[in-house]
Amino acid sequence: MGVLTCEPVWWRDLIAPVLEADGTLDQDGSPRRQYYLGRCHSYKMDCIINYPYDCEFPIQNLPYGVFSTAQDLRKRIGVAIGDSILDLSKIYNLFNGPLLSNHQDVFTKSSLNALMSLTPECWKEARTTLQSLLSSKTNSSLQGQSKVFVKMQDATMHLPAEIGDYTDFYSSMNHAYNVGCMFRDPNNALLPNWKHLPVGYHGRASSVVVSGTPITRPVGQVCPEGAMSPNLKPSNLMDFELEMAFFIGGSPTKLGERIDINDAHNHIFGMVLMNDWSARDLQKWEYVPLGPFLAKSFGTTISPNLNLTAQCWNCVGKEQRQSI
Amino acid sequence: MGVLTCEPVWWRDLIAPVLEADGTLDQDGSPRRQYYLGRCHSYKMDCIINYPYDCEFPIQNLPYGVFSTAQDLRKRIGVAIGDSILDLSKIYNLFNGPLLSNHQDVFTKSSLNALMSLTPECWKEARTTLQSLLSSKTNSSLQGQSKVFVKMQDATMHLPAEIGDYTDFYSSMNHAYNVGCMFRDPNNALLPNWKHLPVGYHGRASSVVVSGTPITRPVGQVCPEGAMSPNLKPSNLMDFELEMAFFIGGSPTKLGERIDINDAHNHIFGMVLMNDWSARDLQKWEYVPLGPFLAKSFGTTISPNLNLTAQCWNCVGKEQRQSI
Repeated sequence: MGVLTCEPVWWRDLIAPVLEADGTLDQDGSPRRQYYLGRCHSYKMDCIINYPYDCEFPIQNLPYGVFSTAQDLRKRIGVAIGDSILDLSKIYNLFNGPLLSNHQDVFTKSSLNALMSLTPECWKEARTTLQSLLSSKTNSSLQGQSKVFVKMQDATMHLPAEIGDYTDFYSSMNHAYNVGCMFRDPNNALLPNWKHLPVGYHGRASSVVVSGTPITRPVGQVCPEGAMSPNLKPSNLMDFELEMAFFIGGSPTKLGERIDINDAHNHIFGMVLMNDWSARDLQKWEYVPLGPFLAKSFGTTISPNLNLTAQCWNCVGKEQRQSI
Repeated sequence: MGVLTCEPVWWRDLIAPVLEADGTLDQDGSPRRQYYLGRCHSYKMDCIINYPYDCEFPIQNLPYGVFSTAQDLRKRIGVAIGDSILDLSKIYNLFNGPLLSNHQDVFTKSSLNALMSLTPECWKEARTTLQSLLSSKTNSSLQGQSKVFVKMQDATMHLPAEIGDYTDFYSSMNHAYNVGCMFRDPNNALLPNWKHLPVGYHGRASSVVVSGTPITRPVGQVCPEGAMSPNLKPSNLMDFELEMAFFIGGSPTKLGERIDINDAHNHIFGMVLMNDWSARDLQKWEYVPLGPFLAKSFGTTISPNLNLTAQCWNCVGKEQRQSI
């Protein structure tokens, strides 16, 4: 399993092709838009949990996360809904669909890795089951079961998965040009390979942490402009890049096996927002010829809520997928 | 946990300061030398398992590994001795020393990670216990217990630990100069930072495999000399570097916590030999500015026997440690 990341793309832009107006007006008079993740889901679906219309966690979203509470320190899988988290460790036996009835144990784990190693069809069935359980239009067995919900304010969020490898891609031309100007010169900013392959490097998987974790300013070698040797000092040029990070899952592959580009979406489980913290003064001195290392490895922050992509890719047509 | 690696150093050179002649002569008439890992161990120690004098796995060595057999597919921890493996999952209850009696479960795991997360004092106690159990001079409870030994030829070796991060260092000046000539030019081969810091990059942890695993020649972009754009083709310049790889363990550290250089040896659990496979034609095109990626990530091979370093560092004097 790994995390594939790319340079800044704001997530609402990414899902823009499936945002739709619901026919009502916003407070400023503009058409009100609802999250509409996939054409097979009605955005008017009602939920047994009440939340305001502009809530980040409506029944159409349902990101997974791993949480604990002061009363129960076990790390367990939950789904964000309104201002609450549905505790899947308490309702794992309700995943009774044809694919998941033999895999209910994945919802009792302390990370999402077991669920991620199943297929997109399983991920879709899990989502359909969750929407049905949370819908006020079904006779949901969760109705009135307040013990299976935890208020977000009472929960501590953890990394959603154990991260085996983390790769950071250099996929915005403007960003690549800007960093090239910072470290080289404007005439040599964008290197010849950039327009031919996704330039990337492995980051430090063990220092990927959830948003809110304190990040310590690193100490390292910095070489002043024109100097012959470096000084050891705390970084004076801390920076971060806002990125999208994708969690890779699906049927495991063997060493040396290649994935067809048309099958790639079946291995993208979900996405989070990411801050790629960077100590630019350390990076400028250390990055040749093997790339950034200590200038990045002191910490990388991700949002704890892992938004599914699979059901989105499965529902929009191939043409739309390509245009996204 | 991670793997720290450095460029080619043959391991017998590394332990040369503690190799000693035993007073007898080799077949060619030169003084015969015995492995002598640490001054607290007698190299004349006899073993309940017979092996020839030039055996790679005498009672002074005792590398750990993870193995399975056709009769018992469980991955379990073993120690190499002569032409056999001592199955620690069957004798975990014999680790009765003051430190390990509360940690016997680490010997029942399918990887070395739990043992590695203990302290060097624990690692040393484990080694002392193993030497005592294997010594023919103690009334060892292993005497005649053939069921706790497996012949190496009947075992399949696996990765000794789950590798969380893998870092490859560029630590031989000759190698750095040669690669610099290959990718740049002799006047620009060794970059200014090389003599000031250990230049390194993160490799792909999930493709580190044990020796003998087939490695598939990667397909990637190669840009011919003077061409404006690359071709997609199988690598035509496969290479490998022979390296030493160190497994990092010891008391866990917190994000942002620094380890004093004088405490670093307490975090080095053991070492293996490593082949850093490299597709030089892919690397030459892709490596700027973020370092090697697909040219390395298709596979990295390590020996399955993890030689302890801790007891060696603890036994030789500080002066010798620095000279090593």
